[in-house]
Amino acid sequence: MRPLIVQKYGGSSLATSDKIKNVAYRLMKEKEKDVDLVVVLSAMGKTTDTLISLAQEISPRPCKRELDMLLSTGEQVSVSLLSMAIKELGGQAISLNAMQANILTDSFHSESQILDIDTQRIKTHLQEGKIVIITGYQGLNKEKDITTLGRGGSDLSAVALAVALKAQCCKILTDVSGVYTADPRIVSDARCLKKITYEEMLELASMGAKVLHARSVELAQRYDLEVYVKSSFDEQNAGTLIEKDVKKMEEITITGVALNKNEAKVTLVGVPDRPGMAAEVFTCLAEANINIDIIIQNVSVEGFTDISFTVKEEDLHVTILVSKEAVRDLEAKEVIFKKNVSKLTLVGVGMRRHSGIAAKMFRCLADKNINIEMISTSEIKISCVIDQDKGDLAVQALHKAFELEKS
Amino acid sequence: MRPLIVQKYGGSSLATSDKIKNVAYRLMKEKEKDVDLVVVLSAMGKTTDTLISLAQEISPRPCKRELDMLLSTGEQVSVSLLSMAIKELGGQAISLNAMQANILTDSFHSESQILDIDTQRIKTHLQEGKIVIITGYQGLNKEKDITTLGRGGSDLSAVALAVALKAQCCKILTDVSGVYTADPRIVSDARCLKKITYEEMLELASMGAKVLHARSVELAQRYDLEVYVKSSFDEQNAGTLIEKDVKKMEEITITGVALNKNEAKVTLVGVPDRPGMAAEVFTCLAEANINIDIIIQNVSVEGFTDISFTVKEEDLHVTILVSKEAVRDLEAKEVIFKKNVSKLTLVGVGMRRHSGIAAKMFRCLADKNINIEMISTSEIKISCVIDQDKGDLAVQALHKAFELEKS
Repeated sequence: MRPLIVQKYGGSSLATSDKIKNVAYRLMKEKEKDVDLVVVLSAMGKTTDTLISLAQEISPRPCKRELDMLLSTGEQVSVSLLSMAIKELGGQAISLNAMQANILTDSFHSESQILDIDTQRIKTHLQEGKIVIITGYQGLNKEKDITTLGRGGSDLSAVALAVALKAQCCKILTDVSGVYTADPRIVSDARCLKKITYEEMLELASMGAKVLHARSVELAQRYDLEVYVKSSFDEQNAGTLIEKDVKKMEEITITGVALNKNEAKVTLVGVPDRPGMAAEVFTCLAEANINIDIIIQNVSVEGFTDISFTVKEEDLHVTILVSKEAVRDLEAKEVIFKKNVSKLTLVGVGMRRHSGIAAKMFRCLADKNINIEMISTSEIKISCVIDQDKGDLAVQALHKAFELEKS
Repeated sequence: MRPLIVQKYGGSSLATSDKIKNVAYRLMKEKEKDVDLVVVLSAMGKTTDTLISLAQEISPRPCKRELDMLLSTGEQVSVSLLSMAIKELGGQAISLNAMQANILTDSFHSESQILDIDTQRIKTHLQEGKIVIITGYQGLNKEKDITTLGRGGSDLSAVALAVALKAQCCKILTDVSGVYTADPRIVSDARCLKKITYEEMLELASMGAKVLHARSVELAQRYDLEVYVKSSFDEQNAGTLIEKDVKKMEEITITGVALNKNEAKVTLVGVPDRPGMAAEVFTCLAEANINIDIIIQNVSVEGFTDISFTVKEEDLHVTILVSKEAVRDLEAKEVIFKKNVSKLTLVGVGMRRHSGIAAKMFRCLADKNINIEMISTSEIKISCVIDQDKGDLAVQALHKAFELEKS
């Protein structure tokens, strides 16, 4: 049996007919190595955005079932074109949409979860020697309605197909060379990591390093699937391998530093310290569909406490409205907020075995006169909320202090 | 049970989001009459042409299976948008693609035939009070591959769905007001017909009146389905009803006059008059994928005959090459041809019961000094090949001579 590799190409790699031809050529080269290839595609370039705009011209909040029906066409266009391109080069290929690839999901339109993939048809085409090209981002529920998987959906399709097909690995081909120790636009000597663990990638993925969505990393981790993130434009670069925690030299502790800009900090001041208070506040915010990030509750002083949290700046307006209501209902004192903050995160499995990382981080920021407004930690990461203006400086300082440019 | 009506909207009625909203508004009005509505859509505006161009950038002759996969997205976009638009107006609607509507076809990609429609799901949604919006032009073969129905495919989908659902009627909403006695751009007082028989419509459909494809008319005729052709922009005009031959006043004999421009006439001169000669000539032409229209073989003189036929002018070059080979093989004399001819057709079931129509037609053309190069007749039509320059004049003269402006 030939080894099976799943490759995923994003929209920027498919933006024009020439780019699609280029992907076809690369796949033909890859196929010569006598491997089985399953290819998962996003929609071409900005197609999805264009379709969303079209929908919004018709309905400001379009029906999600119909929106999924609409958006799923984007990937169907790219898979059919890539299949044509491979055939034009003399190769064998077939495109499959989610229905044909039997990708079964639940019915939560616009954010479905994959329940099962019946791989029979895919395997048949692989046995025929064909490159099988599958629409990412979408599935079919049991009523045969088209669903989509939400943000990062095509990555998830690729990982799920790799798991279902027991592929050797899954390669996410994108417009960056891999996962970096920091954003190369901020830190000039940021280094592309050769390896990273699932857990580190999870922290980075949710902390602003947008190369791979957290859901895909979680799924890969659960089934121990090797995932490569690499450039679709640069053949030579091997990219970053995401895999389980392997023994490392003890001194390697920190993997990378990430920055989330455009956050806002909100504090409910003087909340009566009774059980269930926090639950009530955050239920109201959840109902308003607002994603809360860091939450901090200070120790209670004389029966009152302050609850602080961060939200995306674009959600601030609604957050304040909802928070003011909560303050009234809970008989708390007031709502205060601060715009233009950023979240700075240091990630690394090595933290587990090393003390003093946090102290070193805080010292480094203090040396640069950067004030820390909030702190939140997990086993393998430390996040600080700081002034937006100081964000880039902070990333550069940490990158240098922890010598991340050295491999 | 509520009466069921199938409506079909073409691309020009769906070209922008505003036009789609307009269709949604009209359907809501129609739905108030307590009818069940099934709506069949084409792709928006020029979408199909754009997709074909994109495919050709990648492959000059793209794989038909993949081309169907690509083109079918166009209708899926329009059905989802129309469904959103109806919901935005407070109505109930659901969009279905060919897979969801269970439209089973054979596997002749790009020119499939519909084999069966399982209407269970459609009926369920109608019972829920929903307007059911279905992708025209496409189906699914038994391998679950997407197929398309070829030219006029969306009309065919509408008629087939109306037949399968036993609809009261099928309304084809288009950018013209109905079927005219002649092209209104040529004859200023051309009249929109209130009624026309299937047979007359068939002759007109294949003779240049492009409002409705012949395949759809044939299917409607087979199942005795009433089809209306009417404007999607002009509510008031009732359009043209296509139905079976009903008793008419004897004096109504002629329904319309049609003109096919850009034809060419080809003659094989001095063909030995042996059995099988014509078969051989036209087999060669069919293999070259050339559509032959009128064929005339003159009586044989001294063991030789001339065979004349018409083709589309765009096919003339290949036709001459093939014909020259045939002439050599058959030991005939030569190939002559004439470009820039038109085919003029007079249609009407009344011809069956009236003699002298042909004579009147030829006399009318002679009076205008228009030379007739070929003649071909059926029970309900007479076609003449004439000089292209004289085409409009001929249509105007016949329209007047047969008093088609009077109802």
